[in-house]
Amino acid sequence: MINATRLSEEIKTISRFGALPQGGITRLAFSKEEAHAREYVKTLMQAVGMTIREDAIGNIFGRIEGELPLPAVAIGSHLDSVPLGGCFDGTLGVMCGLEAIRAIKEQKISHKRPFELIIFSCEESSRFNMATVGSKVMAGKLSTEALENLKDKEGISLYEAAKEFGCAVETMDNATLPPDTFYAYLELHIEQGPVLENKNIPVGIVTGIAAPIRYALTLQGRADHSGATPMNMRADALACAAEIILHVENVAKEKAGETTVATVGFANATPGVLNVIPGSVSLGIDIRDIDHANLEKAALLIEKGIEKITHDRGLIYTLKVLTHDIPVSLDKKIIETLENEAKKLHIPTLKLPSGAGHDAMHMPYVSTHTGMVFVPCKEGISHNIAEEVNMDDVMYATEVITKTLITLANEG
Amino acid sequence: MINATRLSEEIKTISRFGALPQGGITRLAFSKEEAHAREYVKTLMQAVGMTIREDAIGNIFGRIEGELPLPAVAIGSHLDSVPLGGCFDGTLGVMCGLEAIRAIKEQKISHKRPFELIIFSCEESSRFNMATVGSKVMAGKLSTEALENLKDKEGISLYEAAKEFGCAVETMDNATLPPDTFYAYLELHIEQGPVLENKNIPVGIVTGIAAPIRYALTLQGRADHSGATPMNMRADALACAAEIILHVENVAKEKAGETTVATVGFANATPGVLNVIPGSVSLGIDIRDIDHANLEKAALLIEKGIEKITHDRGLIYTLKVLTHDIPVSLDKKIIETLENEAKKLHIPTLKLPSGAGHDAMHMPYVSTHTGMVFVPCKEGISHNIAEEVNMDDVMYATEVITKTLITLANEG
Repeated sequence: MINATRLSEEIKTISRFGALPQGGITRLAFSKEEAHAREYVKTLMQAVGMTIREDAIGNIFGRIEGELPLPAVAIGSHLDSVPLGGCFDGTLGVMCGLEAIRAIKEQKISHKRPFELIIFSCEESSRFNMATVGSKVMAGKLSTEALENLKDKEGISLYEAAKEFGCAVETMDNATLPPDTFYAYLELHIEQGPVLENKNIPVGIVTGIAAPIRYALTLQGRADHSGATPMNMRADALACAAEIILHVENVAKEKAGETTVATVGFANATPGVLNVIPGSVSLGIDIRDIDHANLEKAALLIEKGIEKITHDRGLIYTLKVLTHDIPVSLDKKIIETLENEAKKLHIPTLKLPSGAGHDAMHMPYVSTHTGMVFVPCKEGISHNIAEEVNMDDVMYATEVITKTLITLANEG
Repeated sequence: MINATRLSEEIKTISRFGALPQGGITRLAFSKEEAHAREYVKTLMQAVGMTIREDAIGNIFGRIEGELPLPAVAIGSHLDSVPLGGCFDGTLGVMCGLEAIRAIKEQKISHKRPFELIIFSCEESSRFNMATVGSKVMAGKLSTEALENLKDKEGISLYEAAKEFGCAVETMDNATLPPDTFYAYLELHIEQGPVLENKNIPVGIVTGIAAPIRYALTLQGRADHSGATPMNMRADALACAAEIILHVENVAKEKAGETTVATVGFANATPGVLNVIPGSVSLGIDIRDIDHANLEKAALLIEKGIEKITHDRGLIYTLKVLTHDIPVSLDKKIIETLENEAKKLHIPTLKLPSGAGHDAMHMPYVSTHTGMVFVPCKEGISHNIAEEVNMDDVMYATEVITKTLITLANEG
């Protein structure tokens, strides 16, 4: 049913939008590069006969009507990337979703429910320190005011960026959808972890999605001359940051749950030169767990550590919560349907949690049933130009979701 | 002899070149702001009757002939600043030097030797990670090739920046001066440390200058997804950097000499976003001591620590030596002359070492005698917009150097 050559070629073409000389892509949300990728995919969607609409935050919906006027079965992912990212994170989910719907259409397989392919806007948090913006808006979790307050490094707000991108931001209220707008939502994504590859299993069925708690931490010490200030008279914000970075690592490794991870993504020192003791440092902290209690425990331990370390060193700090999400359990019915369809196709699967966040986290607010499928990625590497998948695995996963889409679209 | 009002006013005027809204200045080497400050001071120098020449790296020399054709007695400092710097580091030395020579001229005090006021080029290392460039070139310590290899953040080489600034860089060889070009070189500078203020002494007489060893360290880990990569499968370059930053601090605090200081000025993570584990980090390390053996010991311990920490974490690194200087003892004869002149003026002095580097470090290569005078600065704060001096202290110090200049200029 699935046309592997066509799918591979189209993914290769999309890899050119934002391509880097050393491989991989930089295709930030609302960038020119993303606009080009979106235009290309819209052309493919139109060729399948999809009706396209775009909401106020830039989410794209491609719809194929079913035999009955029932809520649609949707599938989707995103086209934006992190800086120096890979070619499969997001893109693979969009294109396998398109290929699945296209295959159903080509084979003239009947479906009572409509299908919708969704390209979510601004899934990566790289530009505005906020992930899954498109699905959050859809789920009614982000106000226009919040979009105005999220700024990138140049001080451009997400709201302005979306407007500049051509989104009808003044109609933002319409972008929030009512509950049960969709009968089901499926998302295919690379695992971004090493489990499936290690166990040599081509298809992962996701049981739940870890949620992030994210902080922006600013440490205020005192900028002094690096040569003339004795060690015992310093208020070095970077040395203080170093202690906090190791504390964050230690909490995730030793003190919280087995699935807890925590990362400091940057520690930007000011003035940041060789001959001045760093007077202030800003850090970005990201904590994740699929277990809600352990996530909260880790966050509390990290907050307490920051308080103690800065107090002992005589620095002051400001800690701003950027994100405080709750882990999501995925739909049992979808998990069973995916398992059954895979079994019929003799494709091995493994149930596993998702450490990374996805738009699927927010879709239960607008979709009756929500599920996810993982494809192994090489060495678990993602958010990196070295991101790589095996096309055989991709084909197996696409077959499973195609069959699942057909089953779901004929339910109810 | 000294005109305090005039001196204060002129320093205030110079503070406007590169002034920041929150106070202090940003006046980087070879910037428009520095050019304006230099033009203003050159005007003042001409008003005193100085003959002005400028060498290939941008050092400015203002000369007043003496009664005899003997090597000159020189005094000087610099006008460039760190980013978010204060108004007195460098500027005070230039202006007190000018005021001293001006006072001698106005009082028609006879002097056998000529006087030269030197404004050194590119003293701060903020822009090119290399300090005291002007005096190093003068002392023959920097080749044209080295100047071409020093780059700022935008990739502009020091050589290009100097050329763009209007320096006759093609005559660089002429900028290196022969030994004993000057009979004596004096420099007045803020202490940049807390000792004089704590002891309530207006004039410090510097016995020696600490030398820096500086490294550019790059850590190479692996950029992975911050949510989907278990803690035990990471090669987090920023966590590794954190351990190294604390090691650097610990070596200076506990393991080297009493006067050893060591600083990590920045730790720039790539890609530096919340949802990616930092794949690489670049650090700037600055180690200083007035004791040569302890300086080398600290550098060795830091190098060994970097090797062990990166090895244990499975990261690779490159360590580049940016600077490897030797501490300098200042001239006994100058120290004695300064002490005698201060005693005659009933001004209390304290002999102390300099933790910070100064152009005076390199002047023994071109000057028969070299000495330095410190003025206390508020709370020892420097390289900071809060940098502050007491004008009474400045006047005492300027009186001492004026008398010392007269004595030296009538010697031999």
